[in-house]
Amino acid sequence: MSTAERPIVAIDWGTTSLRAALLDAQGRAVEQHSAPRGILHVAPGDFPAVFHDVTAPWANLPDPLYLLCGMVGSRQGWMEAPYCPCPAGFGEIARSLAWIEPDRIAIVPGLSCEQDGVPDVMRGEETQVFGACGLLGIDDGLFVLPGTHSKWVRVERGRITGFSTFMTGEAYSLLRRQSILARTLPEADSPFDEAAFLRGLSYARATANLLRSAFSVRTLALLSRVEAPALESYLSGLVLGEELRSAAPAAGGGPLVVIASKELQARYALSLRSMGLQCHSVGEEAAWCGLHAIAKAVQQQP
Amino acid sequence: MSTAERPIVAIDWGTTSLRAALLDAQGRAVEQHSAPRGILHVAPGDFPAVFHDVTAPWANLPDPLYLLCGMVGSRQGWMEAPYCPCPAGFGEIARSLAWIEPDRIAIVPGLSCEQDGVPDVMRGEETQVFGACGLLGIDDGLFVLPGTHSKWVRVERGRITGFSTFMTGEAYSLLRRQSILARTLPEADSPFDEAAFLRGLSYARATANLLRSAFSVRTLALLSRVEAPALESYLSGLVLGEELRSAAPAAGGGPLVVIASKELQARYALSLRSMGLQCHSVGEEAAWCGLHAIAKAVQQQP
Repeated sequence: MSTAERPIVAIDWGTTSLRAALLDAQGRAVEQHSAPRGILHVAPGDFPAVFHDVTAPWANLPDPLYLLCGMVGSRQGWMEAPYCPCPAGFGEIARSLAWIEPDRIAIVPGLSCEQDGVPDVMRGEETQVFGACGLLGIDDGLFVLPGTHSKWVRVERGRITGFSTFMTGEAYSLLRRQSILARTLPEADSPFDEAAFLRGLSYARATANLLRSAFSVRTLALLSRVEAPALESYLSGLVLGEELRSAAPAAGGGPLVVIASKELQARYALSLRSMGLQCHSVGEEAAWCGLHAIAKAVQQQP
Repeated sequence: MSTAERPIVAIDWGTTSLRAALLDAQGRAVEQHSAPRGILHVAPGDFPAVFHDVTAPWANLPDPLYLLCGMVGSRQGWMEAPYCPCPAGFGEIARSLAWIEPDRIAIVPGLSCEQDGVPDVMRGEETQVFGACGLLGIDDGLFVLPGTHSKWVRVERGRITGFSTFMTGEAYSLLRRQSILARTLPEADSPFDEAAFLRGLSYARATANLLRSAFSVRTLALLSRVEAPALESYLSGLVLGEELRSAAPAAGGGPLVVIASKELQARYALSLRSMGLQCHSVGEEAAWCGLHAIAKAVQQQP
């Protein structure tokens, strides 16, 4: 039977959780569900059982192709899918799949790149970037995937040519909860304060150094220049601004795409506008669209 | 009796510990000792008792002047000594002492400054800077006091005109122990690796963004490009390099002075040499010399 007609079951299997979906012919999820079974929560050897559980709703489909992406392909995952070096497009990815069961279950490899003699790696984001390209109908652009470790990904002529990681989400969390600033910030989360956030963004650009700008959270509070409930948004602006001042100018007038939840889309769009930059936004459907496109590329292989 | 002949007992009373010394006429410590009784370890109301304990060896001196500096003058200390705004020299400081007992026990105020509408503050470092000026016989320069929160202090014509705080030591500690990098770094401290440290310094300058450069600790380890025992020195270079790339160029050819322990003096001197900069180094005697100079300024007041 032609693989072109096979059902595609897509799994975005990350560090803390996973999402599984049955895709239609356009790469949209027709049925989907998620589970708190990221690779940190699966004992070695238990991956087949978890896979069986999460794909149970589709067990009776005729000859499905299961395509997985994310940390499930790391050394701590189900099976290591070695990094595919950049530049990499659908062709390189499709040839580098790690097959758990021949012609049935495969893991999309992560990508690696190198700049100034220093490597960088990602797993899962490459799939979302390809998906966003398909959703927007573009072959070139700069893509940002905000998170614990934000990725900024360059696409040229449909291939990922390089990318950079910023420890933005993790740095925010460390400063918010573990540093001396935690003593100044209210313990409970405060409502988003746009003016304080924009002030943080602006000061991040002025100082061009988070080691320096971060201390202002303490001094502004100490000297009662910023009200306590606004400090969290101010810190968020400082940390996000630190990422953007280095990464965003590389868009250079070409398409700039944010792949994120609605809340982060809004925060990035606001931040980029404050720098005079426009962006497209794509949500979690990017992973499905990317896995679907990779599945199609696999089927077109000789 | 003229205060010029009074014995001076100096106390550098910080967050985690304190040091007390009897000074000679040149501002050198003739007797000194330390205690783990920083302000975090003194209950409110217990400051007089701790003071009594640490000054007991000199209780029989004729009419001593006790001069204190550091966090003991903060809101959480013995008595708040309001920040003295920059520019500030001996005159401003001497007029702004917080007297706990008239003409007997005083706390040196911290300094505040403002840049781009954002305040900065310090307590204790101002005294060390004045001391270093006296020890080196200079009235102008850029002074760095490395630490949990490093201070870079500008002195012009004998007055402190401005300063900046960098959360260098704290950021290093958070990345080293609390971040994802802690999983990659050996848990025990490794011996200093100069080549790895210099590589970190260099990459900090190349990326000009610690959010980005820090992730390289993980990728270099993951792809076996740096041996595990070298990673700690590499991270130290990244974090220190992040401070230096912003702060050190402001020396602009004038004197650059490091006030620190011998170990940190060496690390800063090495780092600055790698940027083509020379520095002077001063140790813990700076606080004694500074307190002595302030005591003399107090005695010269009308």
